[in-house]
Amino acid sequence: MSPSKGILFLQSILNVQGAVQSTDDVVQWLEERNRSVKVHIEPTRFSALRNWKFQPATGNLIHESGKFFSIEGVHVHTDWGALPTWKQPVINQPEIGFLGALAKEIDGVLHFLMQAKIEPGNVNNVQLSPTLQATRSNYTQVHKGTKPLYLDYFLSCRPADVLLDQLQSEQGARFLRKRNRNIIVKTTDDPPVDENFRWLTLGQIIELMHRDNTVNMDARTVVSGIPFGDYSSAVVELSSSMSQGSINTDLLHSALDHESALHSIDDILSWLARLKSTYFLDVKPIGLNEIEDWSVTDEKIHHVEDRFFSILPVEVEIENREVATWAQPLLCPAQEGICAFVIKKINGLYHFLVQAKLECGNHDVFELAPTVQCLTGNYRSAASQKLPFLEYVLNAPKNRIIYEALQSEEGGRFYHEQNRNMIVTAPASFAEQPPDNYLWMSLNQLKTFLKFNNYLNIQARSLIAAIQFSTKAPA
Amino acid sequence: MSPSKGILFLQSILNVQGAVQSTDDVVQWLEERNRSVKVHIEPTRFSALRNWKFQPATGNLIHESGKFFSIEGVHVHTDWGALPTWKQPVINQPEIGFLGALAKEIDGVLHFLMQAKIEPGNVNNVQLSPTLQATRSNYTQVHKGTKPLYLDYFLSCRPADVLLDQLQSEQGARFLRKRNRNIIVKTTDDPPVDENFRWLTLGQIIELMHRDNTVNMDARTVVSGIPFGDYSSAVVELSSSMSQGSINTDLLHSALDHESALHSIDDILSWLARLKSTYFLDVKPIGLNEIEDWSVTDEKIHHVEDRFFSILPVEVEIENREVATWAQPLLCPAQEGICAFVIKKINGLYHFLVQAKLECGNHDVFELAPTVQCLTGNYRSAASQKLPFLEYVLNAPKNRIIYEALQSEEGGRFYHEQNRNMIVTAPASFAEQPPDNYLWMSLNQLKTFLKFNNYLNIQARSLIAAIQFSTKAPA
Repeated sequence: MSPSKGILFLQSILNVQGAVQSTDDVVQWLEERNRSVKVHIEPTRFSALRNWKFQPATGNLIHESGKFFSIEGVHVHTDWGALPTWKQPVINQPEIGFLGALAKEIDGVLHFLMQAKIEPGNVNNVQLSPTLQATRSNYTQVHKGTKPLYLDYFLSCRPADVLLDQLQSEQGARFLRKRNRNIIVKTTDDPPVDENFRWLTLGQIIELMHRDNTVNMDARTVVSGIPFGDYSSAVVELSSSMSQGSINTDLLHSALDHESALHSIDDILSWLARLKSTYFLDVKPIGLNEIEDWSVTDEKIHHVEDRFFSILPVEVEIENREVATWAQPLLCPAQEGICAFVIKKINGLYHFLVQAKLECGNHDVFELAPTVQCLTGNYRSAASQKLPFLEYVLNAPKNRIIYEALQSEEGGRFYHEQNRNMIVTAPASFAEQPPDNYLWMSLNQLKTFLKFNNYLNIQARSLIAAIQFSTKAPA
Repeated sequence: MSPSKGILFLQSILNVQGAVQSTDDVVQWLEERNRSVKVHIEPTRFSALRNWKFQPATGNLIHESGKFFSIEGVHVHTDWGALPTWKQPVINQPEIGFLGALAKEIDGVLHFLMQAKIEPGNVNNVQLSPTLQATRSNYTQVHKGTKPLYLDYFLSCRPADVLLDQLQSEQGARFLRKRNRNIIVKTTDDPPVDENFRWLTLGQIIELMHRDNTVNMDARTVVSGIPFGDYSSAVVELSSSMSQGSINTDLLHSALDHESALHSIDDILSWLARLKSTYFLDVKPIGLNEIEDWSVTDEKIHHVEDRFFSILPVEVEIENREVATWAQPLLCPAQEGICAFVIKKINGLYHFLVQAKLECGNHDVFELAPTVQCLTGNYRSAASQKLPFLEYVLNAPKNRIIYEALQSEEGGRFYHEQNRNMIVTAPASFAEQPPDNYLWMSLNQLKTFLKFNNYLNIQARSLIAAIQFSTKAPA
C-alpha cells in the first residue's frame, strides 16, 4: 500500500465530525428512516414458499432459478476438538458478491457513501450499510429487480482508484466457504446522492459502531480491512495533530508499528502452518435428507433438540413508499453469542489474543478468531466447559472494557441475530503462555493478514472494525 | 522475517563452493548412488496390485489402509476458458506431509542436509531431495516401515529455529487441493550424517538445478520459498562483496527491492480478487466410475483418446543393499511439457510475467503460474491455439535464455515425467499491455506471495527456485 493511501484513511478515521453532517444528525436520519419503514415477517410453510423448493433426490432447499443460495447438508470429520464427526445444514452461496464502499475526498478528508438499508432479519429495520451490497444474482438481475445504485463505479473501476480489494469470509459455522469481495473505490465525480445515502467519514462510521445494531455486518467487514500502512512513531505524532480529540496513541502504535510485535509475521505463519498440517478437516457435501439429527418439517428445519439454529420459511413485506414482497428462508439462531478480544500491552504495543478456530465452512481449516467466540448457551454452562478466557471477559471491570455493543449479523440471511461484541484490556501478566491455538498479535499484524484474504473470520473483523483511535486511553 | 535470517540465506545462495565438498563431488556422489541402485518397475494388473482395491460403490482406487492417496473422480464446472465442464480422475491425498530441510551453519554459512533419494518414477533413479520427505502416513508408520531419518528435528522444533514454514500446493490439474508443509529448521547439533546425505549450500543446490533431472521437485519447492527480506540497494553492494563470482545485481535488486515494482502488492491482490470473483470454479467429487470419457481396465485408467495421462498399476523393486518391493499406481503423462517465465526490466528491476491460472485442484480458483505452462501436444499445435507468449519462448535466441533444464515431477507419483523449465529475458517493449490474466511482478513480490501460502503454483515455484544471483548478467 502506498503511504499516501494509509494517510488518507488515517485522516478519515481521526475525523469524527464529517464535512456533510454531524454524527448525531446521521443517528436521527437513521431513526427517521427506521420509523418510515414497516417490515412484516410472516412465518409460512415451505410448501407455500414462493420460488423455493426441496430438491427431491437430496432434500436440499433451493431457489427455482438455481441461483441465490441453497440450504444443503455437510458431513464433517475432524480430529480437532471434542467432536470427531457430525452432520449439519449449511447455507451454500458459492457466488462472490460485492460489499462496496464508494469514497470521495470532501474538504480534503475521505468520506464514504453509506446507505440506510432495510433488511428483513434486522432487529431494527434499517442499519447503515456500504454503498453497494449485491450478490452476483442481484447485479446480473436474476430477480428481475432494478440495477443496484452506484453499481457501475465498482464494475468499471480503474486500478488506481481501488483503495481496498479483498475476499473475506462469512460465518464458517453456517456458510459453506462463502465469501465476499470487500472493495473501496475512490471517485472524483460528484454522483447524485440518493435519499437513502449519506457521506460519512471513517471516524463517524466507527463512532456509530459503538451504538447497538446501527452499522450492519457488511459495513463492519469493509471497514475492518482498511489498513493505515507501516509507519514509525513519528507518524503517531503527526496523527495526534490531525486528531480532533484526545488520541489513543497506544492503540495507534499497535496499528502502525511493524517492528516491535512479540512474534514476527513468519512466526505467526509457521504457527498456522503447524496447526493446519497437524489437524484435518474433511467436509463432504451431503443431502439435507441425510442428516439424522435434524428434522425437516413444513414449518422449519431444526435440530431435534432445538440446538444451534433453525431455518424458517417466511413471507417478507417491506412497506416504504412502495410495497415489496418476497419469500425466503431465514436462519434463526437458538441463542445469543459473545465475541470478545482481550488485548494487553507488550513491548509498548497493544497486542490482541487471537484464537485459531476451526469451523466446518472455513476456506482453509483454521481462521483467526477473537479470544472468545461462543454462544450464550455455552457460557451459561461455562463453569463446566471452561472455555478459555470467557470468565475474564464476563467479569471484566468497567474500566477495562474499551468497547461493548450488540451487533447484528447479516439481516438478509439471519433473523434477529445479535451478538455482544467486546474489547477488554488485560494486565501484563495475563495469558503469558496461552494455549497452543492462541497467539498475541499486534493490530498491524492483524491488518497484514486481513490484506492477504481469508485469514481473519468475520467475528474478529467485526471487532477490529470498531477500534477507535481518538478516544480516551484505556486502563 | 528478521533481516538476519535473510542475510543468512543470502550468504548461502552466494556461496557456490560449500564447506564440505565441491559441487562436482556432489554430482559424482549422486552418479555413484545412481549406479549402485537398481529400480525395477513392472507393469501389473489392478486386480493383482497388492494392498490396493477399487471401492465397489464409486469405482475409486484406494489403499486398503484408507491412507496414502486414492484415485477419484471430479466433475468440474467453470466459466473460465473454453471448456465449461468436464470430468476427470484426480489424485486425492488430503494429508499434509513434510518437505523439510535441516540447516546448519558450517564455517559461518548455512548448509542444508540434502538426501540422495530413490523414487520409483524418476527417469534416473536417484535425485537430490530435502532432508525429510514424508507423508503423515509415512511418519505415523501406517506402512510399518522404519521411522524417517531426522524426523524428530521437524516434529519438535522450537519456533526460534524455524527459518521457513509454508503450506504449498502441488499440480492442480492432477491433485485435489494437495499441499505440503515446506519447512526449514536450523540446528546447532551435529547429527550423524547418513551415507545418503550431504551438507550443501543454497548456491550449490541451485547450481545443481541447472543440470537436468538432478534436484527433485520437493527440494525445488522448499528452496523456492526462501526469502531474502526487503532491502535497499545498499545491501546489494554488500552482497556483491560476499559473492565468490560475478553477481547479477539486476536479479538481486528484483529479489530485495520492495519499492520500485510496477504494481503495488495491493494492486496485485485487487487483480486476483477481481479474477476470483468474476469467474467461478465448482469441483464436485464423483466416483471414478462416473467419468464417461475415461476407461478403467485391469491394465490402466486412461482417457478414451489417450490424452492427458494414464494411471498404471506397477510392482516396484528397489535393489540397494537390501531389496524393497511394493505395489502402487503411478501416473504416466501423455506428453512432455514446458514451463517458462519471461522476464524483463521495468524501473531497473527484473519483473516476471505471471499468469493467473485456473486448475481444477487449486485451493483457491486461481494460482500464480509461469508465463507459459503447457503440454508439448499443445505447443505442437500452437499455431492454431495461439497460446500467449509460447512462440516467443520457443524461438528465444540463446543469449536471452538465462535458465534451461529438464526437471522431473514427483517420482513417488509420476512415471518418468519431465518438463522443460526455462527463464527467458525480453526487451522493454515486450507485453506492455499483457492479457487480463497476466501481470508483471518483481521477484520480491513473488517471494511475498509465496510466504502467505498457496498463491504460486508448483510450476512457478520450480522456476523461481532455480534463480541464481552469482552468474553472468543476462542480456
